[in-house]
Amino acid sequence: MDQRPGLSEVQSLQFAQDNRNRYLAELKEFLSIPSISTLSEHRSDIQHAAEWLLQQLRTLSFRNSEIIPTNGHPIVFGEWFNPSNKLTVLIYGHYDVQPADPLEEWDSPPFEPTVRGDDIYARGASDMKGQAHAVLKALEAWLQRGDLPVNIKILFEGEEEIGSRNLGDFIDKYQERLRCDAGLNVDSGIIRPDLPSLVYGLRGTVYLEVSVHGPSSDLHSGLFGGIVHNPAHVLCELLAGLHDREGRVTLPGFYDNVRVLTDKEREELAHIPQSDEEWVRMAGVPQLYGERGFTTIERLGARPTLDVNGLLSGFTGQGAKTVIPPRAMAKVSMRLVPYQNNDAVIDEFKKYIHNNTPATVKSEANVLQSGPYALIDRETPSMRAASAALEATFGVKPVFRLEGGSVPVVTLIKDKLGVDSVLMGFGLPDDNIHAPNEKLHLPTYYRGIDAYIRFFGLIADQAKQRYDT
Amino acid sequence: MDQRPGLSEVQSLQFAQDNRNRYLAELKEFLSIPSISTLSEHRSDIQHAAEWLLQQLRTLSFRNSEIIPTNGHPIVFGEWFNPSNKLTVLIYGHYDVQPADPLEEWDSPPFEPTVRGDDIYARGASDMKGQAHAVLKALEAWLQRGDLPVNIKILFEGEEEIGSRNLGDFIDKYQERLRCDAGLNVDSGIIRPDLPSLVYGLRGTVYLEVSVHGPSSDLHSGLFGGIVHNPAHVLCELLAGLHDREGRVTLPGFYDNVRVLTDKEREELAHIPQSDEEWVRMAGVPQLYGERGFTTIERLGARPTLDVNGLLSGFTGQGAKTVIPPRAMAKVSMRLVPYQNNDAVIDEFKKYIHNNTPATVKSEANVLQSGPYALIDRETPSMRAASAALEATFGVKPVFRLEGGSVPVVTLIKDKLGVDSVLMGFGLPDDNIHAPNEKLHLPTYYRGIDAYIRFFGLIADQAKQRYDT
Repeated sequence: MDQRPGLSEVQSLQFAQDNRNRYLAELKEFLSIPSISTLSEHRSDIQHAAEWLLQQLRTLSFRNSEIIPTNGHPIVFGEWFNPSNKLTVLIYGHYDVQPADPLEEWDSPPFEPTVRGDDIYARGASDMKGQAHAVLKALEAWLQRGDLPVNIKILFEGEEEIGSRNLGDFIDKYQERLRCDAGLNVDSGIIRPDLPSLVYGLRGTVYLEVSVHGPSSDLHSGLFGGIVHNPAHVLCELLAGLHDREGRVTLPGFYDNVRVLTDKEREELAHIPQSDEEWVRMAGVPQLYGERGFTTIERLGARPTLDVNGLLSGFTGQGAKTVIPPRAMAKVSMRLVPYQNNDAVIDEFKKYIHNNTPATVKSEANVLQSGPYALIDRETPSMRAASAALEATFGVKPVFRLEGGSVPVVTLIKDKLGVDSVLMGFGLPDDNIHAPNEKLHLPTYYRGIDAYIRFFGLIADQAKQRYDT
Repeated sequence: MDQRPGLSEVQSLQFAQDNRNRYLAELKEFLSIPSISTLSEHRSDIQHAAEWLLQQLRTLSFRNSEIIPTNGHPIVFGEWFNPSNKLTVLIYGHYDVQPADPLEEWDSPPFEPTVRGDDIYARGASDMKGQAHAVLKALEAWLQRGDLPVNIKILFEGEEEIGSRNLGDFIDKYQERLRCDAGLNVDSGIIRPDLPSLVYGLRGTVYLEVSVHGPSSDLHSGLFGGIVHNPAHVLCELLAGLHDREGRVTLPGFYDNVRVLTDKEREELAHIPQSDEEWVRMAGVPQLYGERGFTTIERLGARPTLDVNGLLSGFTGQGAKTVIPPRAMAKVSMRLVPYQNNDAVIDEFKKYIHNNTPATVKSEANVLQSGPYALIDRETPSMRAASAALEATFGVKPVFRLEGGSVPVVTLIKDKLGVDSVLMGFGLPDDNIHAPNEKLHLPTYYRGIDAYIRFFGLIADQAKQRYDT
C-alpha cells in the first residue's frame, strides 16, 4: 500500500497542527455539557450536547444535518457527499456520558474541564467526547481544502451508556440513508501513548438488577431479629454463589460456547507490552485476581466475567441503626465473549436467582441492558487503512488486541447494514473512564486527529485502486 | 400486698384523667424536636430536646435540675427529695431518637406528630419520648397534691440510640449523686393493649461496620473485569459465610455460653398469647424464619442473632453503570444473650473477617457499639410493685417475658450503682420503632401514666412496710 501522503493530506495535517489551541477550547466547551444519559434530570443537557454537535456539522457544511428523535435520546446525523468519491464511511460515536458520582473523589469538577500537565480532566473526556471531537476536526482539516476524499455519514447517539436502547430501531428505520461501505467506530483506545493498537474483538454485556424483598418496612433488629429472614443475607448468599472458589462463574453452561483462542492469538496477545505490574498500578489493587489458566490480557479480552456493580440495603449512613432492612438490591453485569448467547445467559441467571430464593422472601431479576460481543475480520480494507494510518502517525506498527469492554453497536451495524467497522479511538487504559478523574491525554488526542486525517486518505486510495484496476 | 389505693393516689389518677388533652399537646411539642443522636447536623435539636425536658423538671420544682454535658450529648438530671420518704427510685430514659429515613415511606412527616385513630405517628413516639413524657406526667399528678411518696432521681440521656457511649463515665463521675434504692427504666413495652407484661431479660448488642477495599477508585468493568477482585464479591462471601444452612451463626464458640431456658420458662413463654400469624402480619413477611428447635418467642428473647443492617457498594442509582467498585461496606449487628461475652464475640468476628479476606483486597471491622445483655430478678420489691400496678391498671396479671431488644443501661446501673431496674414501659410490638411510621398507641400511653402513678404508690408502701416491721 502506498503510504506517501498526497498534497492535500499534508496540508490537512498542517492545518490540524496550526489549530490545536482552538480545538482545545472547543473540546472544553463540549466537555462542559453534563450529558448524562442515565439520569432523567439531565435530559436538557443531552439535548444541548446534540445541538452542539449539530452546530459542528453545520459549520462543516454537512448535508442533511439534523437531530433525529428516538423513543429515548436523539441521534445526531449528517452526511458529506461528492459523486466522484468511491467510498462511503459511516462514522459512529456517542455524545452521552456516564454519571459522575462519587463527586467527592474528583480533583476538579467533572463538568469543568481542567488541564493538568498533558491531560484534560472531565467526565466524557476519554469516553468519548474527545474522540468524537477529534474525528470531526480531521474532517474539518480535509474540508478547509474544499472536499473530502471519501463520502461520510455521521451517526452520534445519546444512549450508548444506557445500552443503545433505540439504536437498533433507528438503523432499521433509516437503513437506506445509513447505507455505507465501511464503518469507523471511534469509541475505542490504544495501549500506550507510544503504542497504537487495533481492536478485533469486543466483549458483550448483560446488565441486571436483582432485588430481594422481605419485611414490608424497616424492622427493629432487637424486636424481630431471629424470626424473619433478612433480605440482605439472602442477597449476599445469592451473589456469593455466583462464583466458585476458583473465581469461575457458576451459572450452568456459562463457559460452554466460549471461543477458544488460537495458538497464534495467544502468542500475539503475549507480546502486548503491558505487564501485570502496570495493571496493578492502574487498578490500584494489592494484587491481581482472575480465572486460573489465563494471562491478564486473555482474561480481559477472551474470557467472560461477572461483576457486582452496586449493592444497597438498609442503613448506610454514619453511625449505627439497628434495622432489618425490607429489601436489598444489587446491580450485576456480565461481560460475554464469542460465542456466548446473551439470552441464554440471562435465562440461566434468572433461573439461578429464582431457584435459590427461599420462600421466606421474594426476589426479582430485571435486565437493564444486553449487548452482543463482536469479532472483527482483520483483513478488511478499513482495517488495513487504519493500521497504516496508525503506523504513519505513531512510527510503529499497531498491535492487534481483544478489548474487554463492549461496543454492541459494532455488531448492530454488521447485522443491519452488512459492513464491518474498524475501531479506531485514542483513549488510554489509565483514563479513568466510568470513574472519578476521567481524563484525556492531549498529545494522544492530537495524534488521533492526524491518524484520522491519514485514515480517510488511505481508505480513499484503496477504494480508488480497487476501482482503477 | 395491699393494692387498695390511698387517697392521694386516687386523686392523682383523677388529675391525670382530667389533663389528657394537655398531655397530648405537650407530647406533640416534644415529638416535634428531631433529636437524632447519630447525625451531627441534629446537634442543636438534641440540645433543644434536653432543654425541653429541663423545663418540665423545673415546672415540677425538681431540685438540682440541670443539663450536664458529657463528651457527647448531654444528660438531663433532676431530683425530688423529701426526708420522710424511705425510698429513692432512679428513673432512666432517653430523649434521643433514631434517624427517620427512608423519609418517603412515612405517611406523615416524622417530626410533625399526627394523630390517626388511636395512634400518634412520629419518630420517637414509642421509642421513647412517649414513655419519658408519661412518667413525668405521673410525677406531676402526684405533685399536684404537693408531694411524692418516694424520692426520685431522673436521668434522661441523649445517646441511647448510639450506644450510650458516655453513660458509663457519667455514672462513675456522679455515682454519689445517683445513689438510689431501685431503678425504673421506662424504655420498654407490653405485648398487647390488653395484656401487660414485664421484661426480665434483655439481649445485648454488638454493632460493627465491615469494609472491604479493592481498587483505588471506580474501575470500568469492561476494561478491568476479570483481573481484579471485586470488593463487593468479597463482602458478600464474608457475610454469606456468617450463617450456616440452618440459619445458625458460624462464628466459633458463638453458642457455647448461651443460657439454656428452664422448662418452667419455656412453658411460661409458650403461654404468651402471640401467634406466629401475628408476627408474620407485624413483620409483613411471606413467612417466618429462624433457628431450628426454638419457638418464635424463644428465638426473639433467648437466642442470639446476627443481622446485616446495611449494605453499600458501587453504583446504586437509577439505571446501569458498569463499575467495579473500589470498596464495599456492611453494617452488622448481633443480639447477644446470657451468658455470652461481648468482647469474645467481637474477637471472633474480627478474626473471621481477617482470616477470610483474600490477599487481593483489604478489609477492616470496627465496633460501633457494644452493650451487654441483662437478666433481672423477678422477686425484687420493684418487680412486685410493677406487677401489681400493671394488674390494677389493666385488670389482668402481667406476663413475664424475655425481650429481644437491648437496654444496656440496665446492666450498667446494676454494675455501677448496685441496684436492679424494673423495665416498665408502654410501647407495643407493632409501633414501628426504628422504622417509618413509628407510632404510639394513645389509650396505652394514658394507661401507662396511671400504671406509673400506682407504681410509685405501691413501691412506697412496700418500703414503708419494710421500715415499719
